Amino acid sequence: GATKPVVSPASGAMAWAGASPQFSQPESESQFKFRGKFQTEIMATRSDIETTDYGRASEIRRVRLGAQGAFSPSLDYVAELDFGGDKIGYEDIFVRYRMSDHTAIRLGHHEASVSLDDETSDSNHSFLERSLHNSLSLGRSVGLGFETQGQRWSLNAGLFGQSQLDTEVGESEGWKAATRLMWTPLHNSNHTWHLGAASYYVSLGEEDYRVSARPESHQLAALFDTGEHAANDVKYVGLEAAFQHHSLLFQAEFGEQTVDYTQLDESRFVTGYAQAAWLISGEQRNYDRSRGKFGGVVPATSWGEGGKGALELALRSSHMDLVSGDISGGKGSTLSVGLNWYPKSFLRLSANWVHFEIDNSLEVLPQGYATHKGNAFAVRSQVTW
Amino acid sequence: GATKPVVSPASGAMAWAGASPQFSQPESESQFKFRGKFQTEIMATRSDIETTDYGRASEIRRVRLGAQGAFSPSLDYVAELDFGGDKIGYEDIFVRYRMSDHTAIRLGHHEASVSLDDETSDSNHSFLERSLHNSLSLGRSVGLGFETQGQRWSLNAGLFGQSQLDTEVGESEGWKAATRLMWTPLHNSNHTWHLGAASYYVSLGEEDYRVSARPESHQLAALFDTGEHAANDVKYVGLEAAFQHHSLLFQAEFGEQTVDYTQLDESRFVTGYAQAAWLISGEQRNYDRSRGKFGGVVPATSWGEGGKGALELALRSSHMDLVSGDISGGKGSTLSVGLNWYPKSFLRLSANWVHFEIDNSLEVLPQGYATHKGNAFAVRSQVTW
Amino acid sequence: GATKPVVSPASGAMAWAGASPQFSQPESESQFKFRGKFQTEIMATRSDIETTDYGRASEIRRVRLGAQGAFSPSLDYVAELDFGGDKIGYEDIFVRYRMSDHTAIRLGHHEASVSLDDETSDSNHSFLERSLHNSLSLGRSVGLGFETQGQRWSLNAGLFGQSQLDTEVGESEGWKAATRLMWTPLHNSNHTWHLGAASYYVSLGEEDYRVSARPESHQLAALFDTGEHAANDVKYVGLEAAFQHHSLLFQAEFGEQTVDYTQLDESRFVTGYAQAAWLISGEQRNYDRSRGKFGGVVPATSWGEGGKGALELALRSSHMDLVSGDISGGKGSTLSVGLNWYPKSFLRLSANWVHFEIDNSLEVLPQGYATHKGNAFAVRSQVTW
Repeated sequence: GATKPVVSPASGAMAWAGASPQFSQPESESQFKFRGKFQTEIMATRSDIETTDYGRASEIRRVRLGAQGAFSPSLDYVAELDFGGDKIGYEDIFVRYRMSDHTAIRLGHHEASVSLDDETSDSNHSFLERSLHNSLSLGRSVGLGFETQGQRWSLNAGLFGQSQLDTEVGESEGWKAATRLMWTPLHNSNHTWHLGAASYYVSLGEEDYRVSARPESHQLAALFDTGEHAANDVKYVGLEAAFQHHSLLFQAEFGEQTVDYTQLDESRFVTGYAQAAWLISGEQRNYDRSRGKFGGVVPATSWGEGGKGALELALRSSHMDLVSGDISGGKGSTLSVGLNWYPKSFLRLSANWVHFEIDNSLEVLPQGYATHKGNAFAVRSQVTW
Repeated sequence: GATKPVVSPASGAMAWAGASPQFSQPESESQFKFRGKFQTEIMATRSDIETTDYGRASEIRRVRLGAQGAFSPSLDYVAELDFGGDKIGYEDIFVRYRMSDHTAIRLGHHEASVSLDDETSDSNHSFLERSLHNSLSLGRSVGLGFETQGQRWSLNAGLFGQSQLDTEVGESEGWKAATRLMWTPLHNSNHTWHLGAASYYVSLGEEDYRVSARPESHQLAALFDTGEHAANDVKYVGLEAAFQHHSLLFQAEFGEQTVDYTQLDESRFVTGYAQAAWLISGEQRNYDRSRGKFGGVVPATSWGEGGKGALELALRSSHMDLVSGDISGGKGSTLSVGLNWYPKSFLRLSANWVHFEIDNSLEVLPQGYATHKGNAFAVRSQVTW
Repeated sequence: GATKPVVSPASGAMAWAGASPQFSQPESESQFKFRGKFQTEIMATRSDIETTDYGRASEIRRVRLGAQGAFSPSLDYVAELDFGGDKIGYEDIFVRYRMSDHTAIRLGHHEASVSLDDETSDSNHSFLERSLHNSLSLGRSVGLGFETQGQRWSLNAGLFGQSQLDTEVGESEGWKAATRLMWTPLHNSNHTWHLGAASYYVSLGEEDYRVSARPESHQLAALFDTGEHAANDVKYVGLEAAFQHHSLLFQAEFGEQTVDYTQLDESRFVTGYAQAAWLISGEQRNYDRSRGKFGGVVPATSWGEGGKGALELALRSSHMDLVSGDISGGKGSTLSVGLNWYPKSFLRLSANWVHFEIDNSLEVLPQGYATHKGNAFAVRSQVTW
């Protein structure tokens, strides 16, 4: 009900954080801030097969509303929802307790840390869509996470269920265990070396399992697709490396997933990508050691105030092989070029061009077609606050 | 993730804007404000045909949450979602750049400016539902908009796609181009003459097209309805006029839409309305020249503080003819009376009575019925912040 | 549109209310505050019948976003949405006018006051789920509510429709009238006696009616279930009592519902529960006389600041009998034990264990089974702001 909240005698303070205010209560060191963003997009696709030639299109890609706060310096939370695509999407919704400067636990709906590409926020990513490799990541679920770090290493681990109740009776919901170990042999103001290894295990208990991926364009259908088949469990091993040299950032990842199907042969699916991003205007992304990821771009000069904002050029080559055992889910690659203009902090305009080539995607290709080639183009405007 | 935002050293300022605070950062002239509103409604309908006699009903008509802000005086944004009717509705979600005091562009999800009735916010409208004429408007889509003005004229133009990805493969999503030219021969503190002409073109490429309208009551079904038929393109021409004399506001619009059906004869659909609204308590609505629309009511005195709030009486007659070519989508008219009480700013109680008469609505009328008559009544409470 | 709001010259003030700021405008005594919370849950169920043995599961139980504010000390509003379970849920969305210190009306979407269990906020409830008894409550609908109180009594009354438009044509939407009379023979700083009687009437006009209840675990299906059958109207009488002695709170309710089915025999459904909650750490819940309910727990000491937070132990026994007339919807009982830890205000960790036994639930039990027994366990983390 609308009962009057208890108002503490000490009034709060306000600071400007990002593109919106952050409120704090000095006495208890409590904090509160609203979060949000939106992305609108105009796209075009041309393909050599008529049935996947989507032509021009446009969409509201993401609209997010949420909040973050702290009850004390060691206890904070975040809750964010996405309303893109005409449905409710659950983003970070968890409470975190920092046991020390280096160790924290997360309880709630959060990301299973298994990949640099996946951990990088879509707001901050050099490309509009994550790589093909990301389709082997686990995404967010309800669970318990743990993160800690030493002088040159950090470790993320978690145990997860699902986001929504499993409506299937008579058996337990599947569960997932994930871990990611990172090593940072070099990390100073201008240079960072990041190396990592991740693995996860998913217990399915004969639930249906599917791997699918759009070829790095949200307009395209999931042209890589294993189809749904009952499986016992899934195992994964991934390797990752990144090197930042001033405004240049190179990164590459490789992953192999083993699916123990209930009635089909065991399959091994392989993905990987390599990418380079260059902030032409000279800025440099921050590196977050605790989660092993790079942050967003803060333009050195702002457009409209005598400056031009920041400009970034990015190139990526991705590969995916879902053809193994009894599965013909597609084997192919994409080449992406991205151009990002950040006129001011919290405002971004991006253009991406993607070329894709896929063989043996039997679930998706019309009969009689062996390969599938095409190009996708998209421009996006993004506002965060 | 819940990474700590960068807090700028200069703390922000707060002012009271509308029924909620507006925050600003003096240094960068950034701004931020939350937006929201809700409308709850109780209705009753009586019709001469049993199958559309809806009786009493009630509903949450709209609940909106969102934000608006500015990165600088020339660069601002708005993002708002509607959660009425058990689904996610996308409202204004765009970023705007003001190139000068008179010229601006909008990028994102916004309204195609084609009609005074459509541009008027539902919060500020003298009636609970827009006129029959509004069913020929284009609503909001993802696109690029342009608005400029001279001493006595203003121009809105835009190029649009859709809000959501078209799932139909093998062809491009339809697109729309819209323009509206307004002339303001007289505009002083007490008198405004507003004249306008609008036109739009919708390229459909054999997609299904439908025009439908509820007779100015949200409880009723779309008793005007052409049904869905494949069409090549749609053209529209509209004319509008408004005259404000102190607390009296007269307005009228007329529109003609030509649909080039793929397999049916070309059809011409016609709509129009005339309305008068009188603020009995003497207030006067503001006129916004850049978008050609009138604003909300700010009561001269507040109820409960020695005053009575503002009271408005409104009368509207609307007409719609969807009978043309091979289409019998209904021909008819409505007469609406509205009474609005604004006890305080941002709080509104409204009552509307609508009489409707429709002929030849073959898609909707039960067999054997030639005409369809009835009355609808609704009361609404509205809070905005 | 993104028109600039009118900024009042007097700037606002901020105070810390709950875990987030509350803004006010001293001149008009306007107020504004954001509301929100989230609950994530991990559960397990074991049942003697294989088809309802759900095993382990997890979910985001609730995520809420909203706002509350006041236009003046006597006129306030609240609007809150829930996004749990992948759908939009309407919570309190109403405007309230306080005619005097003791009398107020509510207009909009709000709770029909018929039970202590139902009125207690899920954030503040001693158990994760309300009792079986709650399935006879009416929940929230659009309507008009009235509340008043004398020295030792209070009265809530309301007339309601529905939240969403009834899509059934040819007949009126059902309506509900509810009233609840409460007597508080004793109410001082340490002791409260609360006695109450409630009744309601639902007019259905041959609409389908169903009573169903999950056995106090959100993971379980509605194992009590009358099925859907056309009914003319529903009548209810309920009795309630609560006694608070310092940190001990005892409460019990009993309800009887009479359903006048259109084609089946009249049925009488009976529910009730008794519960005890003990705040081991010595805190005491507030009692709200106007709505007849107890509030949340404010820990005397905070965990991490030399204290341990608050700890609460709760025990509940509930009973439900949906076997009457032609209906065999289940007859059974549950026994629940709850343990709540409130490390700080606005943060809560809870564990619940529920044992249930049900007979004669013909709609739900697989053929050949007469009874249904099992246990459910759940842990939840909750953050409110």
